[in-house]
Amino acid sequence: MREVTLVGGGLSGALLALMLARRGVKVTVYERRADVRAEQIEEGRSINLALSVRGIHALNRVGLDAEVLARAIPMRGRYIHPVTGSCSLIPYGRTADEVIHSVGRRGLNVQLLDALAREKNATVHFQHRCTNYNLRTQTLTIRDEAAGREVGVEAPVVIGTDGAASAVRLALMQSTRMNYSQEYLDHGYKELTIPPAPDGTFRLEPNALHIWPRGGYMMIALPNLDRSFTCTLFLPHRGEPGFDQFPMPEAVTSFFTRTFPDAVPLIADLPGEFFRNPTGGLVTVRCSPWYSEGRVLLLGDAAHAIVPFFGQGMNCAFEDCEVLADLFDEHGGNWDEVFPRFFASRKPNTDAIAQLALDNFIEMRDTSADPHFALKRQLEHKLEERYPGQFVSKYGMVSFHRTPYRDALERGRVQDRILMDVCARANALAEIDIDAAFARLRAGA
Amino acid sequence: MREVTLVGGGLSGALLALMLARRGVKVTVYERRADVRAEQIEEGRSINLALSVRGIHALNRVGLDAEVLARAIPMRGRYIHPVTGSCSLIPYGRTADEVIHSVGRRGLNVQLLDALAREKNATVHFQHRCTNYNLRTQTLTIRDEAAGREVGVEAPVVIGTDGAASAVRLALMQSTRMNYSQEYLDHGYKELTIPPAPDGTFRLEPNALHIWPRGGYMMIALPNLDRSFTCTLFLPHRGEPGFDQFPMPEAVTSFFTRTFPDAVPLIADLPGEFFRNPTGGLVTVRCSPWYSEGRVLLLGDAAHAIVPFFGQGMNCAFEDCEVLADLFDEHGGNWDEVFPRFFASRKPNTDAIAQLALDNFIEMRDTSADPHFALKRQLEHKLEERYPGQFVSKYGMVSFHRTPYRDALERGRVQDRILMDVCARANALAEIDIDAAFARLRAGA
Repeated sequence: MREVTLVGGGLSGALLALMLARRGVKVTVYERRADVRAEQIEEGRSINLALSVRGIHALNRVGLDAEVLARAIPMRGRYIHPVTGSCSLIPYGRTADEVIHSVGRRGLNVQLLDALAREKNATVHFQHRCTNYNLRTQTLTIRDEAAGREVGVEAPVVIGTDGAASAVRLALMQSTRMNYSQEYLDHGYKELTIPPAPDGTFRLEPNALHIWPRGGYMMIALPNLDRSFTCTLFLPHRGEPGFDQFPMPEAVTSFFTRTFPDAVPLIADLPGEFFRNPTGGLVTVRCSPWYSEGRVLLLGDAAHAIVPFFGQGMNCAFEDCEVLADLFDEHGGNWDEVFPRFFASRKPNTDAIAQLALDNFIEMRDTSADPHFALKRQLEHKLEERYPGQFVSKYGMVSFHRTPYRDALERGRVQDRILMDVCARANALAEIDIDAAFARLRAGA
Repeated sequence: MREVTLVGGGLSGALLALMLARRGVKVTVYERRADVRAEQIEEGRSINLALSVRGIHALNRVGLDAEVLARAIPMRGRYIHPVTGSCSLIPYGRTADEVIHSVGRRGLNVQLLDALAREKNATVHFQHRCTNYNLRTQTLTIRDEAAGREVGVEAPVVIGTDGAASAVRLALMQSTRMNYSQEYLDHGYKELTIPPAPDGTFRLEPNALHIWPRGGYMMIALPNLDRSFTCTLFLPHRGEPGFDQFPMPEAVTSFFTRTFPDAVPLIADLPGEFFRNPTGGLVTVRCSPWYSEGRVLLLGDAAHAIVPFFGQGMNCAFEDCEVLADLFDEHGGNWDEVFPRFFASRKPNTDAIAQLALDNFIEMRDTSADPHFALKRQLEHKLEERYPGQFVSKYGMVSFHRTPYRDALERGRVQDRILMDVCARANALAEIDIDAAFARLRAGA
């Protein structure tokens, strides 16, 4: 019987374990954290994620899509909060099903682990941290955190699904000729909470991703099942404004009152949460190759951590799982064939989504406040309507279609340039010659 | 009294320890290897290095330049070995002192450690390997390899001089927002030996760096004090030819006979050494920043490992030491001032030498076999002679002058382009209008 050891039982680890177990592979998962199902964390208050077509498609392969979507909140567009003046919704898509879904990370992990627990082929060891991997001897060093002891585990086939700070990747980086880079943005992030209203309702429009775009920085908010919102403030670590500019609670309140005036009365405990919650970093990790022969592979964030601005980290990792499962079927489970093909197929696409995510930060914090951006979105939807199958917006290719990320990046950049140029010359959709715009898009200039 | 802990007692660690100890700093050095002075390694058979002006200048600051040069072999130029036809020497410089010096790594380390042993302020602990550094608690974890136990050491100021695989850098990479990249060349290297002739003389011209340029790959040889040469073969890891293409001794001998015919009778034990000696990788490491407040700094290869093709790895690290010592003097030993200034001053220059070293691989393996390259070198020397102080070749700026590497890269690239263009139109120096060439160089086009 085939055996695989997965390091990491988070979202992608659990999904991949499920897919492999159902293919008759004996799967052992080592997860450094405790079982999230046993922890007493209030549902919906942890980080939420935007689930879109790639993630849903992969969940469908294990029959979990409906169950997950039942606990998700559809977001129809970006709800823009200017400093003054009225808010507006810029729809993501053209049709009712072109939405993205706010899901809680913990709830989703619970659903995946529950499904995995029903598989006889799969075993998950929680509180078992991988501290080393020896490629030559094919041995993992696993620290049993509860027992406080370390053991060596023979693992002829290892898949590292252990996230952005992957221990498996670190071991490969030190023992093989792996090209590697980690690049931090100057910006960090901090989470804040908008609780439900006293009457138990949402305090903002629930079916939207809220954005307070402010040029060099921004805040966003996603809805949770418990009718709270999780806000994320993205700000430079240093500078004016910057996370280092707030030595005192008064400075925080004053900054928020000046820049996010409509959010101030909604956030429960503004200076308190600001100082209590950690400031996170935003990193892009690229490496190459992701495998060594048929012995070890990296997948998901372990291979390609990206910034969160396109909401594709999880979706991309789930697509990884699906591609790996398909290659497994195609090559009769021969890892020597599967791993190199997986890398060759995914690397150009994960490099592309890393870039798309970086580009989208600029769009979200900056151009989404530009009236021409709203016009561009209208034009895109008009083009999609008039030329079905011939035009798809960049956002649509990434979030509503499974267009390879590399194609979405290449075509999307050309499209965006042309469309912004068209929209810069117009004040309303009625002024734009749709067919002429389409002709320019076909010509690519 | 000021105290500094250095992790790594190799070439740059020992030199920096010497400079700091003489400034009244109490220096503790932890070196993972055993004391090279106690080991029974035959002198001159290990790796040799090319010492040039920056390294010599830094050694002069601690009064060791004459002593080191006394055990070095001057190399006047590149001695080109074609597959067929006669060899030729392309001089590095114009004057008798424009040479580079082949020194043995171990001998140089012994000289530095002997000088350090005379400093009362400095202590070196050999076989003490740093396994971790905790920036927050300012504690190093040091493993005493002889005693087989690990201890925590308080270290308020740490300088990581622990080379390309730096443990201090790894700890910073995992605990701070450090941008980091490691990039491997497709080529690796393997060392081979040309022993002295039976009568105890050198088997090749001793005062030269020998090159067998072959386009996509090359071999070089540097003279040792014991009248042997250390050859280094640079070849792709995979390919045709590539290190993976030699499963059998016969294939090695056949490849060498075909491509390095004049070297075959000189190498002592060709297929034997080839299979016995490891194949090394060639990596460029870049990171940013190199410091955290006044607590920890990376220096030398730990901060910026480069490929060996300009012979500048050690010279650059020694220049680091000198710059750091000068900043120490300038800022009264205030590390909070010194570390950020050191990083700001050195980073653009170490990025530049990393690029120059990569560029020089192409030049060495490829264009140095081109007759126009020899002509270009003649033209450069003629220009230096006719326009002293106004023209210096790129090679000269890097190896015979202490021109900041960044300037050498920027000016050198422009110069090289113009000079190769001029030389491509001529067959001999006499055909070239020197003043017209100089006018083009001044115009930069």
